[in-house]
Amino acid sequence: MDVLLGREGRSLHLKAAGGATAVLAITMLTGSWAVVAAEEGARNANLTTYPRALWWSVETATTVGYGDFYPVTPWGRVIGAVVMVVGITTYGIVTAALATWFVGREDRRRRRMARSVEEAVHKLSDETANALHERFDRVERMLSTKGEPEAGAG
Amino acid sequence: MDVLLGREGRSLHLKAAGGATAVLAITMLTGSWAVVAAEEGARNANLTTYPRALWWSVETATTVGYGDFYPVTPWGRVIGAVVMVVGITTYGIVTAALATWFVGREDRRRRRMARSVEEAVHKLSDETANALHERFDRVERMLSTKGEPEAGAG
Amino acid sequence: MDVLLGREGRSLHLKAAGGATAVLAITMLTGSWAVVAAEEGARNANLTTYPRALWWSVETATTVGYGDFYPVTPWGRVIGAVVMVVGITTYGIVTAALATWFVGREDRRRRRMARSVEEAVHKLSDETANALHERFDRVERMLSTKGEPEAGAG
Amino acid sequence: MDVLLGREGRSLHLKAAGGATAVLAITMLTGSWAVVAAEEGARNANLTTYPRALWWSVETATTVGYGDFYPVTPWGRVIGAVVMVVGITTYGIVTAALATWFVGREDRRRRRMARSVEEAVHKLSDETANALHERFDRVERMLSTKGEPEAGAG
Repeated sequence: MDVLLGREGRSLHLKAAGGATAVLAITMLTGSWAVVAAEEGARNANLTTYPRALWWSVETATTVGYGDFYPVTPWGRVIGAVVMVVGITTYGIVTAALATWFVGREDRRRRRMARSVEEAVHKLSDETANALHERFDRVERMLSTKGEPEAGAG
Repeated sequence: MDVLLGREGRSLHLKAAGGATAVLAITMLTGSWAVVAAEEGARNANLTTYPRALWWSVETATTVGYGDFYPVTPWGRVIGAVVMVVGITTYGIVTAALATWFVGREDRRRRRMARSVEEAVHKLSDETANALHERFDRVERMLSTKGEPEAGAG
Repeated sequence: MDVLLGREGRSLHLKAAGGATAVLAITMLTGSWAVVAAEEGARNANLTTYPRALWWSVETATTVGYGDFYPVTPWGRVIGAVVMVVGITTYGIVTAALATWFVGREDRRRRRMARSVEEAVHKLSDETANALHERFDRVERMLSTKGEPEAGAG
Repeated sequence: MDVLLGREGRSLHLKAAGGATAVLAITMLTGSWAVVAAEEGARNANLTTYPRALWWSVETATTVGYGDFYPVTPWGRVIGAVVMVVGITTYGIVTAALATWFVGREDRRRRRMARSVEEAVHKLSDETANALHERFDRVERMLSTKGEPEAGAG
């Protein structure tokens, strides 16, 4: 069950990071195609071929933005804004997932410690209970033994 | 009460992320208007219309910065610096909030484990206490039973 | 002591975030002055005045990089690289400090829960111990009371 | 063993941050050389010397991207994309490692508290057990003492 929970918990931030990366890849591939379509025929348009647009989507999603290519039409800019936001959000998710993974590794250690504490408490409780039961055994033996000679004396 | 505390705690980083996003949106919208006003009439100014300035605010807040548009006046640059800093701070807050959310999901698991430990300790304590009380019942019965035949024998 | 530890712990990531921000501000102010000195007299140099260099340091530290100003000399580029690296490291530290602060807020809740568990365990242990002591009182009373009539009967 | 675990745990995110920084440095040094080789002889190529390419790799890896230098050939752009992705991933890892370090510092405090709770529980259990054993000693003394005068009376 612990293993199952571990798998379930791990899959949230792993799934989020993997999913965001996949969404980013799709956004870049379709965004490159869409921006060429949007820019087509515009004056001063420089995003005119798919390979160039793909390179543009890489420098846009990574927020490098050399300025060698950029959209000049309203729809091209909307597509650019989507690529930027998806790119940034993906890095945020990946960074947060990495932090969660690192912290989780540290926690496994702490969980091990918690378990050892738990075992120590259980062991202690068991030992105390056993010692008290032995004392009861002795008192009961004393009570039965004393009852007999008294009866014999009576 | 636990649910209330959970809601209170969750709202801090969610509120921070939501609030920062709202502040960023307002900064971009008003910054675009302000930068056009600041740049108006300046030599070599390229941020001359609101739609362009809005696009500029997007590439500035996301730190892409193609260089197709940029402020050239002191006040325009102050506005640009504000948009940059608000943008970066917002991603930092959102990333931190995401990490907290991921870590919190992992913690819910740990809390469940802590609760099961607690329950185990309680159960163990109760069982030990019950066993000891039963021993006392037996000793007391032995003491009362032995008192009677002794009195009869006396 | 708990309050003292709380203050000590909080000050680490707060101090780191505050210190990094201060180092970034100093790096930007002195870097702007140094880059003008380094670029002075170079061919095609565009970072020629302190106000321009200050604006350049803002767009460099935030990694926006419009490309309206940039260093063209080796020393100017070394200074630029320092401003970039200090800028990026500062955002990393601030984001990590924010995450720690958010997670710490969540933990205060958990600590409260841990304390309540602790109190429950103490209370339970005390109650069990008191109940057992009462049983001992009764057994001892039974032993003394029975001793007397027996002695009278003997 | 605790010290060993601490060292093992600490080394994960420290190793990841150190390793990523080393990979980034190697990527930048070899990427600068490779981009010059890829761009050589291309029309409008501006990345023509190693010192320029090194400066380009710095502004690319930090995502500043002034646009003073950028690759224009397919292979040059592939190398640029690699430098961007390695750069961004490194900051993500460093930020996550910083967050883990900050959170770990906070946790050391909490671990101290957990240890004090553990000690308190142990002390309490020991005290309870000792008190009950003393009661048993008294009951047993009462049982032996009463047995003797009774035997003498009989």
